Amino acid sequence: MDLDLELDGAALTAALVDIPSVSGEEGPIADAVEAALRPLPHVAVSRHGHTVVARTGLGRAERVILAGHLDTVPVAGNLPSRVEGPRLFGCGTSDMKSGVAVQLRLAAQLTAAARDVTYVFYDCEEVAAERNGLLRLSREHPELLAGDFAVLMEPTSGQIEGGCQGTLRAEVTAAGQRAHTARSWMGRNAIHEAAGILEVLRGYVAREPEVDGLRYHEGLNAVGIRGGVAGNVVPDECVVTVNYRFAPDRDGAAAEEFVRSLFTAWPVKVIDVAEGARPGLGQGAAATFAAAVGGTPRAKLGWTDVARFATLGIPAVNYGPGRPDIAHTAGEYVETAIIGECEARLRSWLTA
Amino acid sequence: MDLDLELDGAALTAALVDIPSVSGEEGPIADAVEAALRPLPHVAVSRHGHTVVARTGLGRAERVILAGHLDTVPVAGNLPSRVEGPRLFGCGTSDMKSGVAVQLRLAAQLTAAARDVTYVFYDCEEVAAERNGLLRLSREHPELLAGDFAVLMEPTSGQIEGGCQGTLRAEVTAAGQRAHTARSWMGRNAIHEAAGILEVLRGYVAREPEVDGLRYHEGLNAVGIRGGVAGNVVPDECVVTVNYRFAPDRDGAAAEEFVRSLFTAWPVKVIDVAEGARPGLGQGAAATFAAAVGGTPRAKLGWTDVARFATLGIPAVNYGPGRPDIAHTAGEYVETAIIGECEARLRSWLTA
Repeated sequence: MDLDLELDGAALTAALVDIPSVSGEEGPIADAVEAALRPLPHVAVSRHGHTVVARTGLGRAERVILAGHLDTVPVAGNLPSRVEGPRLFGCGTSDMKSGVAVQLRLAAQLTAAARDVTYVFYDCEEVAAERNGLLRLSREHPELLAGDFAVLMEPTSGQIEGGCQGTLRAEVTAAGQRAHTARSWMGRNAIHEAAGILEVLRGYVAREPEVDGLRYHEGLNAVGIRGGVAGNVVPDECVVTVNYRFAPDRDGAAAEEFVRSLFTAWPVKVIDVAEGARPGLGQGAAATFAAAVGGTPRAKLGWTDVARFATLGIPAVNYGPGRPDIAHTAGEYVETAIIGECEARLRSWLTA
Repeated sequence: MDLDLELDGAALTAALVDIPSVSGEEGPIADAVEAALRPLPHVAVSRHGHTVVARTGLGRAERVILAGHLDTVPVAGNLPSRVEGPRLFGCGTSDMKSGVAVQLRLAAQLTAAARDVTYVFYDCEEVAAERNGLLRLSREHPELLAGDFAVLMEPTSGQIEGGCQGTLRAEVTAAGQRAHTARSWMGRNAIHEAAGILEVLRGYVAREPEVDGLRYHEGLNAVGIRGGVAGNVVPDECVVTVNYRFAPDRDGAAAEEFVRSLFTAWPVKVIDVAEGARPGLGQGAAATFAAAVGGTPRAKLGWTDVARFATLGIPAVNYGPGRPDIAHTAGEYVETAIIGECEARLRSWLTA
C-alpha cells in the first residue's frame, strides 16, 4: 500500500481510492499517508489515531491549513476505481480522495512556500459528529490547528464555497387526549392537531440573505413525524421533528428563537444545533486566496467542518476538485482535469 | 376450583373472578365451567379447546344463544376479588365474569324453558381476532351456533345495546422526493404534503344515522402517522393510518368507498375491515327479548362479537350486568344488584 507522491493527481487519487476507508476503517489509509509523508525532510509529521498531521516550519508570517478527510461513505459496488475517458470513477473519488491527493502532492513539492502550511488528514467525517477526527484533534491538540486561514478540500468542483449554513433540529409536539376510536369524540386527536404544525411548515418562505457577499438559502423541513398508540385508540401525542438550515448571519441562539417564534402554539424542544460559519472572504488570507484562485465564490449551503475552524476563530472555505452533486452515490466520479487545476491554483497561491 | 352453581350471582361472579383467566390462560376456568355443567342432565356439554358449549334439547320452536367470553385483560393488581358495599371489585368483574355467572345460573336452573338455549363460554375475546374462540367455533362447529337470536353478555349496565359499528383501517400515503435538507428545494417534502390528509380528517363531520330505531355515531381518526428518512433528508413518504368506525347501515364495501372518496388525492390501501351488525330489534326473537327486558335500547358503538353472529345470519345484541365504562381498568367493578336483575329478566324472557 505504498503511495508514490510522484504520481500525477489522477493516478494518486486512484491509488487512494483503491485503499478502502469507510468511516471507522481508516487504519490502512492513514498508515499509507503517514508512511508517504514521514520521509519528507521539510514537514513535521504526527499521528493521532487515524488522523495524520504534517506541518512545515519555515517561520513564515502566515500559516494556512489544508484539511481533508480520509474516510468515505460505505462502498456501493464501486471499487476498485476505473477510468472512463476524462473521469475517474469509484467510492471517494469526489468525496474526497481527489482533494487528499492534491494535499499530498503539495506537501511533497512545496519545500519552501511563501506561507507555512499545516496539512491535516483526518478520520470519521462521514459519521456522527462526536467521532470526527478534526473535532478530536481540536480538543486534544489545538496547537496543531493554529493558523490564519483554512481550506477544507471538500468537493466543490474547483470553485470556492464560502462559509457554511448552520443546522438546528427540534421536536414540535401536538398533544391530545386518548379515547377509544369507537367513541372518538371523548378524546382529542393529536395527529389531527399536528396539521397545524405542518401548515406552518408549508407556509414557510425561505430567507436568502447575502452574507459577506455570498447568497445563502435557508430551509425548514419536517424530517420525521411519529404518532399513534394502537389501531383503535385516538392518539394523545404526535411529534414532528424539524430541521432548520440557517444562513451564517444567524447564530444558533437566533435560529432557535426563530423556530420557537413559528411554533408558539406547541411545545418546542431543541435536539441539536451546529453553528454555521461566515465566509469572511473579504479580508486577510481569505481575500488573498479568493483572488489567487479566481472564479465566483458561492455560498456553502450544507454544514461542513469549516464551522469547526470558525469556532476556533479561523476563517475557512471549502475548495476541492470533487463534484458535490454526485458525492455519496454509487456513480461517484471526479473529472481528472480539475484535480490538476485545483492543485495548480493552490500552489500558485501558496508560493506567491 | 369447583364452582357451586347454587351460589347467588354475586358470589358466583367472585368465584369466577378468583380463577385468573388472562387471554391464552383459560384452561383452569374452562375446566371449572365444564365440570360444573357436566352433571346437569338437561344439557349436552361439549369442549373445544378452552371453549365450552352446553345445549338444551327440548325440541322447542325457537333456539337462542347466550354467549360470554371467559378471558380477561391482564390482571392489574386487582385480584383476588373484594366486596365494597354494593360493589364487587376485581379483574373481569364487569368484563365479563358477572355475565358468565348469569349464564351458568340460568343453565343450571332452566331445565324446561320455553325456548331451547345454547350456552357458549369461549376464550380469547380480548386479543387478536384470529385467536377468538367464537370465531374458531363458528368455523369448526357451525352447527353448535345454529339459532334464531343471540345475546352476548358483554358489559352494558343491564341495558340492551343493539348491533355494532363496523371498523375499517386504511393507510393513506403522501409522496414526495428525497433531497438533502441543505438544498431542500431540490426535493418535495412528503410530511408537509400529509398536511392535506390531516386537513381532511380535521374537516370530517361524523354521521349519526338511525338504524332500526337506534342512533349510531361514526368516527374517522388518524391512529398512526409515520415518515422520515434521516435528520438531514427531505422525506419522500409519509403514511397516515386511519380508522373509520361506521354505522351498520353501511357495509364494509360502502365504508371503503366512503374513505376513498375523502382521500382521492392520495393512494389509499385498506388494511382490514370488520363488518358491523344491524340491531334488528324490530322483529322475531329480538323484539320479544327487547319487550321482555325493557329499558331503552342503545346503539353499540364499539365492535363486538355480535358481528360474528350477524355474519352467521343470527340477529344478536349485547346485554350484560357489567359496566362498559370501567372495563379494562384497574378499578373495574360490577354493581352486584344488577347481576341478579339481569338474570331475572333473562329468566322471565326464556320461560315466558
